[in-house]
Amino acid sequence: MNQWRTLTIAGLGLIGGSFALALREAGFQGRIIGVSSLRSTQAALERGIINQGLPLEEAAVQSDAIYLAQPIEQILETLDRIDPFVRPGTLITDAGSTKRTITDRAARSIKRGRFIGGHPMAGKETRGVEAAEAGLFRGRPYVLTSSDPELEGWILKTGARLVHLDPAGHDQLVALVSHLPQLLSTALAVSLESKTGFERVAGPAALDLTRLALSPYEIWRDIFATNALEIDAALGGFISKLQEIREKLTDPAMEEEFARAAEAARRLRQDRT
Amino acid sequence: MNQWRTLTIAGLGLIGGSFALALREAGFQGRIIGVSSLRSTQAALERGIINQGLPLEEAAVQSDAIYLAQPIEQILETLDRIDPFVRPGTLITDAGSTKRTITDRAARSIKRGRFIGGHPMAGKETRGVEAAEAGLFRGRPYVLTSSDPELEGWILKTGARLVHLDPAGHDQLVALVSHLPQLLSTALAVSLESKTGFERVAGPAALDLTRLALSPYEIWRDIFATNALEIDAALGGFISKLQEIREKLTDPAMEEEFARAAEAARRLRQDRT
Repeated sequence: MNQWRTLTIAGLGLIGGSFALALREAGFQGRIIGVSSLRSTQAALERGIINQGLPLEEAAVQSDAIYLAQPIEQILETLDRIDPFVRPGTLITDAGSTKRTITDRAARSIKRGRFIGGHPMAGKETRGVEAAEAGLFRGRPYVLTSSDPELEGWILKTGARLVHLDPAGHDQLVALVSHLPQLLSTALAVSLESKTGFERVAGPAALDLTRLALSPYEIWRDIFATNALEIDAALGGFISKLQEIREKLTDPAMEEEFARAAEAARRLRQDRT
Repeated sequence: MNQWRTLTIAGLGLIGGSFALALREAGFQGRIIGVSSLRSTQAALERGIINQGLPLEEAAVQSDAIYLAQPIEQILETLDRIDPFVRPGTLITDAGSTKRTITDRAARSIKRGRFIGGHPMAGKETRGVEAAEAGLFRGRPYVLTSSDPELEGWILKTGARLVHLDPAGHDQLVALVSHLPQLLSTALAVSLESKTGFERVAGPAALDLTRLALSPYEIWRDIFATNALEIDAALGGFISKLQEIREKLTDPAMEEEFARAAEAARRLRQDRT
């Protein structure tokens, strides 16, 4: 096992910045190079999140590992141009929210480096490197599409729960546990907005369910573009379930739906912070 | 304006207990009688939430105001039997989650007393008088179906935001802002549960959207029974919106949906704690 001496993080936003902070907190002694916009690079330097800011090509040639924490479209572009600059065997991993399109692209474009798809299931309402925090991954799932001992070791040290999934299995699951909730929240907020006076009576339920509706479209456009089929299937299944519930609303059979739902909700909360 | 010297709270759960605590904190000097199960009455006495526990009829005859914080079905039963025991002009109000069925029943059954429908849009995951807290209503909407200066004065002193709505208008709005979110959460949790491995990758989005799915069916059965038509309409509208979103998932038009949704979500968060 090589030891990472120099790590490049491309994309200094919430995830990239938090990964750097989490690694530092976990004892990472190597150099961290940031590849990002001038504004984010300066902010990351000021907070001591990175040691140095460089263009991608210059960073790649010096790195033992490269972490792509950009929006999905940019990850795909980076994969298309980074390979000639990396040293043979360099680990390249990403933090994109869908995995099939990205791992397919990496299989075509990454020849000298070794690519492992990743997806930390973490986030919060505030964005940008200013919002980065070392504890962001703690207790959260972190999906990898294949194995690497050193990458896995660092991920575990961030406090994340490591989950191995193949890209297709990942995309199917996140369509249900992440992309569907986002669309429900968006659709609910739009439905509320069409009803005069909604904000006068909205209580904790409406606040809970519309928090995700604050998410910026820029992130979601790429997710929809790269996971359309699975999201369509998840939406179709959900619409059927909702139609079924609509038809049996005042039926005693609803008790069973509530029991199943509560059981699932409790299971989600086991061993979580 | 008569001043309440004796207030009866029927149903010492989260809402009833919290209303008593909120009134005490706001300076209510009168006597508070509790009408509830033996277990809840004892717990309320131990916490100093009520001064005394009595059967409904004995409490009613001594009261200037009566607050019904029971489940909806029990509120309807109480309305059917309480009137002969109240003094003429006694204020009777309730905290039920739907208003049309309850105000209709009160119009038929309450002759000596004066009934005003109420609905505090507050709650939390934990139930029972043990979970009661004086601050439960702070910043939350509190709907009344008609006016009474003393009742309104106390409600404002709990920190709630007073909202006047007629019963039908209330039921239509809460179908959208409260009952629809509950059913979305329940349907989502059931959908997740049918997919093996969902709990391995669920992140904050799934946790947010399944919190309501922990709610007990006993409360919701009565809500569905007394607001079925409005909930059906809200579900129908939501299913259409979700179908529309499904069809334009990868369309640039989705940006507009996200913008509208974020605007509604922000509006909900204005002036909230």
